[in-house]
Amino acid sequence: MKQVVLAHALDHRPAAADFAVIDAAPPVCPKGGVRVQLSHISMDPYVGSRLRGRHMGEPAPEPMIEAIPGHGVGRVIESQSAEHAVGDWVYVMDAGWREVTGAAASDARKIDVRGLDPAIYLSALGMPGLTAWAGITQLAKVGEGDVVLVDAAAGAVGGAVGQIARARGAAEVIGIAGGPEKCALVTGRYGFDACFDHRSESWRDQLAERYGGRISVHFENVSVDMLMLALTHMAAYGRVVLCGLAAHYHADQPAPGLPIGMVIGKRAKLHGLVVYDFYDRWEEFLSEAAPLAREGRLTIAEDRAQGLAEAPAVFERLVSGRNTGKALIAL
Amino acid sequence: MKQVVLAHALDHRPAAADFAVIDAAPPVCPKGGVRVQLSHISMDPYVGSRLRGRHMGEPAPEPMIEAIPGHGVGRVIESQSAEHAVGDWVYVMDAGWREVTGAAASDARKIDVRGLDPAIYLSALGMPGLTAWAGITQLAKVGEGDVVLVDAAAGAVGGAVGQIARARGAAEVIGIAGGPEKCALVTGRYGFDACFDHRSESWRDQLAERYGGRISVHFENVSVDMLMLALTHMAAYGRVVLCGLAAHYHADQPAPGLPIGMVIGKRAKLHGLVVYDFYDRWEEFLSEAAPLAREGRLTIAEDRAQGLAEAPAVFERLVSGRNTGKALIAL
Repeated sequence: MKQVVLAHALDHRPAAADFAVIDAAPPVCPKGGVRVQLSHISMDPYVGSRLRGRHMGEPAPEPMIEAIPGHGVGRVIESQSAEHAVGDWVYVMDAGWREVTGAAASDARKIDVRGLDPAIYLSALGMPGLTAWAGITQLAKVGEGDVVLVDAAAGAVGGAVGQIARARGAAEVIGIAGGPEKCALVTGRYGFDACFDHRSESWRDQLAERYGGRISVHFENVSVDMLMLALTHMAAYGRVVLCGLAAHYHADQPAPGLPIGMVIGKRAKLHGLVVYDFYDRWEEFLSEAAPLAREGRLTIAEDRAQGLAEAPAVFERLVSGRNTGKALIAL
Repeated sequence: MKQVVLAHALDHRPAAADFAVIDAAPPVCPKGGVRVQLSHISMDPYVGSRLRGRHMGEPAPEPMIEAIPGHGVGRVIESQSAEHAVGDWVYVMDAGWREVTGAAASDARKIDVRGLDPAIYLSALGMPGLTAWAGITQLAKVGEGDVVLVDAAAGAVGGAVGQIARARGAAEVIGIAGGPEKCALVTGRYGFDACFDHRSESWRDQLAERYGGRISVHFENVSVDMLMLALTHMAAYGRVVLCGLAAHYHADQPAPGLPIGMVIGKRAKLHGLVVYDFYDRWEEFLSEAAPLAREGRLTIAEDRAQGLAEAPAVFERLVSGRNTGKALIAL
């Protein structure tokens, strides 16, 4: 079996050369669990922090030994679980970047792939979708009349944020993304009302002119700078979901702090979001999101490559902001 | 009539010498309004920022001309309002530091002083009490089982925070205050379960040991440093009320920012509070707070002096943290 590992311990933003694809013995079937032949594995920005030991206290994987952490989907090839049959499609959160993985029965969630590409369980119906759903429906509680702003809007989480907010009745959904191609994706396929290209000139002025004082919900994926911009243009009593600070994951300096006076002045409500807390709401999330996905109202572009050997290059694109859409590898 | 004014424009923390007590013509009765002989005027920390033009965009009062802004209570001495009779007790938010004030009928709120010192409408039943009530009951929604922390706990807002939280069923109420006398007030008259003296050694270790990971609600009155301490010791999904940053009002540097990673890591919910927004909830607040005050379950110590000539010295004590309890002047 092939798997992807760190070539060495990491103290910088990961690049393709920091990884190695090696042969390894396939994991055995855990007692009472399943063995899964993975069809798709996910690459997520937070893994860049995890590889440096900077993510929620979790250790970095051991170089040349442990597979890079990542979610995956695939089919059961061996089962010691009464709930799983060989051939079942499952989602495994802790799958790793490898061809075969083992999982406890409770960690191999059966997925309904009828009429869907199984890879959607890594994007719109996976952790990115759950993240967006938790922030929009459980924390910010978006409803009719809301004006919702999200950055990294072409990404898997950002794209799902806008589409789920729309489905919940938001009046306007606005994105920020880097470059005209990403913005075209955001206003086209994702159906946002507007997208501001943060690489263009005067986009801040344009945002201020069109939405100043009107944003009622903001979903932060990128940076403290973007958060301050959103707060500047929020209506009083707006709600903010603090999801991630991707721009700071690999910065040499810690992220700057948020001026508290802005929060008080705007009477804002800020929510910290950690998606793991909502993992047990998976079925509730799917009951809302899967119908949207089947109707084409929840869709995420993919940056997809074939084969584990491509994983290092895809991941380098992801953490440097050069990819568009959900990064994943088909095996 | 006497009134207190700025002696000159201000660009530092106000001291007694920055004020002057001058003679002025008493205001006339506004058309349809009332004239009020003030019995007590309030001194509040935010006024220190206001005098420097740093408070919510409001201009500083003109030196030697405009009275220092402040709330007051007193009795109507002239009425052109059908709702007010001469002799009625009223609360006037924009009274000013002077002996007589004029107010529109809607700005002269009738108060029920039966069995109470009218000055309580400047503390437990005034803006400090309303501030505490809004944060505890409307934003943080404190209920049974909550462990509530508040700093500046000997002050009017902080003291009311703890007592209202207790009345709402909080399991434990904890204060932070400066010095053993203030802490004795907090755990004695105010009935908190514990008070940590931030001028003592190792108080941070003691707080961590007794309450680490257990604080479910924090009410911030003082500084970003205290806020970070509270977040450090909060339980997941804690609620924070951002009310004021008194330690920064007169600092040369802007307040440091809050590291957003702490908010995400704790899944905290932060609420900005501006008490003006709750001014129209006054009657609802009083329906809860006045019975508590009459039962002695909501009580605030006073730093009280007699006569306008004392106002500059009392205010200097207040903004330098050397007073205890609600600062006010009896006239």
